[in-house]
Amino acid sequence: MIGYETFELGDFVLQNGATLRGARLVYNTYGALNAQKSNAVVYPTRFGGRHSDNEWLIGEGMALDPTEYFVVVPNMLGNGLSSSPSNTPPPYDRARFPRVTVYDNVAAQHRLLTERFGVEKLALVVGYSMGAQQTFQWGASYPGMVERILPFCGSARTSPHNFVFLEGVKAALTADAAFKGGWYDQPPTTGLRAFARVYAGWALSQAFYRERVYLEQGYSSLEDYLIAFWEGNYVGKDANDLLAMLWTWQNADIAATPGFDGDLEMALGAVEAKAIVMPGQTDLYFTPEDNEYEVSRMPNAELRPIPSIWGHLAGSGRNPEDVRFIDEALKELLAT
Amino acid sequence: MIGYETFELGDFVLQNGATLRGARLVYNTYGALNAQKSNAVVYPTRFGGRHSDNEWLIGEGMALDPTEYFVVVPNMLGNGLSSSPSNTPPPYDRARFPRVTVYDNVAAQHRLLTERFGVEKLALVVGYSMGAQQTFQWGASYPGMVERILPFCGSARTSPHNFVFLEGVKAALTADAAFKGGWYDQPPTTGLRAFARVYAGWALSQAFYRERVYLEQGYSSLEDYLIAFWEGNYVGKDANDLLAMLWTWQNADIAATPGFDGDLEMALGAVEAKAIVMPGQTDLYFTPEDNEYEVSRMPNAELRPIPSIWGHLAGSGRNPEDVRFIDEALKELLAT
Repeated sequence: MIGYETFELGDFVLQNGATLRGARLVYNTYGALNAQKSNAVVYPTRFGGRHSDNEWLIGEGMALDPTEYFVVVPNMLGNGLSSSPSNTPPPYDRARFPRVTVYDNVAAQHRLLTERFGVEKLALVVGYSMGAQQTFQWGASYPGMVERILPFCGSARTSPHNFVFLEGVKAALTADAAFKGGWYDQPPTTGLRAFARVYAGWALSQAFYRERVYLEQGYSSLEDYLIAFWEGNYVGKDANDLLAMLWTWQNADIAATPGFDGDLEMALGAVEAKAIVMPGQTDLYFTPEDNEYEVSRMPNAELRPIPSIWGHLAGSGRNPEDVRFIDEALKELLAT
Repeated sequence: MIGYETFELGDFVLQNGATLRGARLVYNTYGALNAQKSNAVVYPTRFGGRHSDNEWLIGEGMALDPTEYFVVVPNMLGNGLSSSPSNTPPPYDRARFPRVTVYDNVAAQHRLLTERFGVEKLALVVGYSMGAQQTFQWGASYPGMVERILPFCGSARTSPHNFVFLEGVKAALTADAAFKGGWYDQPPTTGLRAFARVYAGWALSQAFYRERVYLEQGYSSLEDYLIAFWEGNYVGKDANDLLAMLWTWQNADIAATPGFDGDLEMALGAVEAKAIVMPGQTDLYFTPEDNEYEVSRMPNAELRPIPSIWGHLAGSGRNPEDVRFIDEALKELLAT
């Protein structure tokens, strides 16, 4: 977390008409912008993640080599570092935090890249999960600016089933009366733990559990995995922040970009960037089938599923084989 | 619900050592037992279901034709009709209801069939979901008695991933403080609705939602489907009853039958009955892969997935094509 920067967005008007006054985008950078400003990469964060959670894919010898590229990792609005329910002053604080779209996130990131760094071309936008949704959005919002995209384990539009999965985790969290409609002073820990426990079944494949891969990850039993990894991951997070990002996720849709009028085919057709779209082969909510459709409507895209039993977490950086597979695709894409 | 019967189990000793005093098994029958007592079929109920929920697969012209077979549908312990948390007097009432296994259920059903009806052979045991788990258990507990089994959308042992899915719905229900550790006087409706909303994502496939099949089922929107079907299905149910059945489900394992000592391969090998095992092709928790393994270890079994996008609900009787597919397999099996 050390060493991040803040970009002041000022009075940031959102797609739904609300103004987030004094909005800010927190980001970190890796490497240096070259003189031609041709080596910039944007790598947005995932649901519940922060810039530091992206660092496993950045490093010397890897595709995102900071000696070669200038990698900018902007924190998603709602993640607790950039403007979020938990850090916004009244009256748009906590349960009153406005609804932020993926479009809004990318508009804010575009201002960061252009205003602060004077970047006019992006060599690449890459992202995992909700980061992949922002990646698709970059391609649709700024087709002339983005040369390549590599969204992994994420879709251009949240599917109805994915929406229902999120209804489930949301219902589990808000079933805790301590949530108080978002006006809690003490965190709704029972709800956060329930949220985590529901999430645990979705984020990994049936085969991951069948083969008890968690035992190889330092967890002593299934219950230990559910508590130490899953509950541990969410119990310290802010409930309103999670729900703000969850709303963004449920409503992710590049066709909601002004000009496309809800037409997904048109929006996908507008993504000119050379793309490798990488679903996790066993992802239960961002399914390969959804990406397959999307790729079929994109002018310059290839579908390349990650052959993994890690479900959605194939893109989480936890399984070295999956990391290699993604990194190799990134190298190939950047070489074109 | 009209016209069911009760079999008094008396002091019923469970596998875990508790005694359910005055235990009872509620059941219904369809058709008549023939003179040779050779036409009996047992068709146990599913999670949250009652005998009337099984009736879609029984009828003239269908495989389970009551003019030909004597179909006995025993209600699972915990379902609110047979002995359950909600209808058992103190001290084993409500949150104190003992843990009942699939083995216990089938032992009780065996007493019903042998003591009340004098049946020594079963032409068939068939069941859906937890009913399928009871079906496998019949095959393992009473191999000499069961001629055929057709378990659909269920497994002989609950898989670890299935267990985690159930941890999620359980956590959602019990996150509601109104649950009061099971000692509620007013039902924990927020928790029951959360339970239902989590369940909704699991019970149907991604494709079911993608293709918006719910719109063809009389629901006006996705949210209407979640409320009218899913919340409507669970909000009137007793929370302790649901959790009692859920425990039975999480711990379902034919290898826990006395004599098998946890050895699933041995338990599957003991199922002599001619079997057609029918997973839903897109079932997210009772997966075809688990049944595939099981069938490979059974001496006389065939795997026949139901080609459906209805996920687990391929076996629920709601989709006419799936009903036909199951009924045809039943006819074929009964003809051998």
